[in-house]
Amino acid sequence: LLDELVRAFGERRWIVYRQDGDVHRRQAAWRLSVACEVGEAVRQVSDLDRAALERDSYNFNVHLLLGGQVRGEGPRTFLIYPQGNPLSSTEDSPFLQLGECKYGRPILDRGIVYESTSLKSAAKYALLSFDATMRSNVTVGPPIELLLYTKDSFQLDNYRRFRDKDPELETIHALWERSLRNAVEDLPDLNFDRHPAHDSQPVLL
Amino acid sequence: LLDELVRAFGERRWIVYRQDGDVHRRQAAWRLSVACEVGEAVRQVSDLDRAALERDSYNFNVHLLLGGQVRGEGPRTFLIYPQGNPLSSTEDSPFLQLGECKYGRPILDRGIVYESTSLKSAAKYALLSFDATMRSNVTVGPPIELLLYTKDSFQLDNYRRFRDKDPELETIHALWERSLRNAVEDLPDLNFDRHPAHDSQPVLL
Repeated sequence: LLDELVRAFGERRWIVYRQDGDVHRRQAAWRLSVACEVGEAVRQVSDLDRAALERDSYNFNVHLLLGGQVRGEGPRTFLIYPQGNPLSSTEDSPFLQLGECKYGRPILDRGIVYESTSLKSAAKYALLSFDATMRSNVTVGPPIELLLYTKDSFQLDNYRRFRDKDPELETIHALWERSLRNAVEDLPDLNFDRHPAHDSQPVLL
Repeated sequence: LLDELVRAFGERRWIVYRQDGDVHRRQAAWRLSVACEVGEAVRQVSDLDRAALERDSYNFNVHLLLGGQVRGEGPRTFLIYPQGNPLSSTEDSPFLQLGECKYGRPILDRGIVYESTSLKSAAKYALLSFDATMRSNVTVGPPIELLLYTKDSFQLDNYRRFRDKDPELETIHALWERSLRNAVEDLPDLNFDRHPAHDSQPVLL
């Protein structure tokens, strides 16, 4: 249902939801707050599914990313929580993640700076963030979809879907691992001293 | 109590524990399995503290790292879980982490290879792992203690404690961020196409 909701929402700006056994839909009001509309739909799905999930010890745990631009307004991106509340990206937190976030976060924290990182560089950082996550959690893998949106373009003309064994993905992965290794080797060696207990306690580490 | 236990254990190879209101200690048998001894002590502490913690909705959640070498045996490292069971490092998983693990894991996964990574390089990877964690979680910070142990040396002669604003730590941090940025810029730009829905749906991202 949620998948249908988001697809329908993306294509026709409708919110689709089920209530009293019937499927309803209503037009989304971008100008008020699309994110709140979607959040409200998440709450409705939560009301429908929560009991059955919790009976089998699952949490209702859906996170959504929503991005877009309405003509005459700036582009916006939101993370919508399972409780339905939206979080907006900001100048200080210019990126949003969902799912297995932590492995891929440091490279974004280091690289993405609001209004200074180019869109092309941001795409590389995003891909490297996925690469780090896939390296550390084998359950995360292709396909990876990237979509770059240029402000005020109203065009979806920079899209890429990386499938398993995509040659470009494998090249980037290999180049990146080599660069990291070289960068580590180029760092100065650390300086060490004796441990304070070196003399009194030579046996145990 | 656990702190005392570990300190006492490190200094004198004693296990210290409290039972029936009294503090007891007994000598640890390295050859059987020190890790199991410590794990058993963790269970005893768990028995003592669990009820009070759970009354205030805390979990008993202590993780310990234990490393060392007994003369005549190889060096070993263990992660000891709150339930008392030990996990050993292996050739395939040559490092152990505890606490806020995920931010700092990809750099270790990429860099640390059993019997191929030098001890000096491993120290840099460990420090960069902490650097990534500190970058992405502000509650993690110095002091950072590193101790390199050379197999069969039975010496604690490569120890370093990095305090806040340690100049070497700040240099490494700055060099590393610059290297990463350069490495990203040096990667080839990604290739993009139009999104399949480009023509039918030019408005929404």
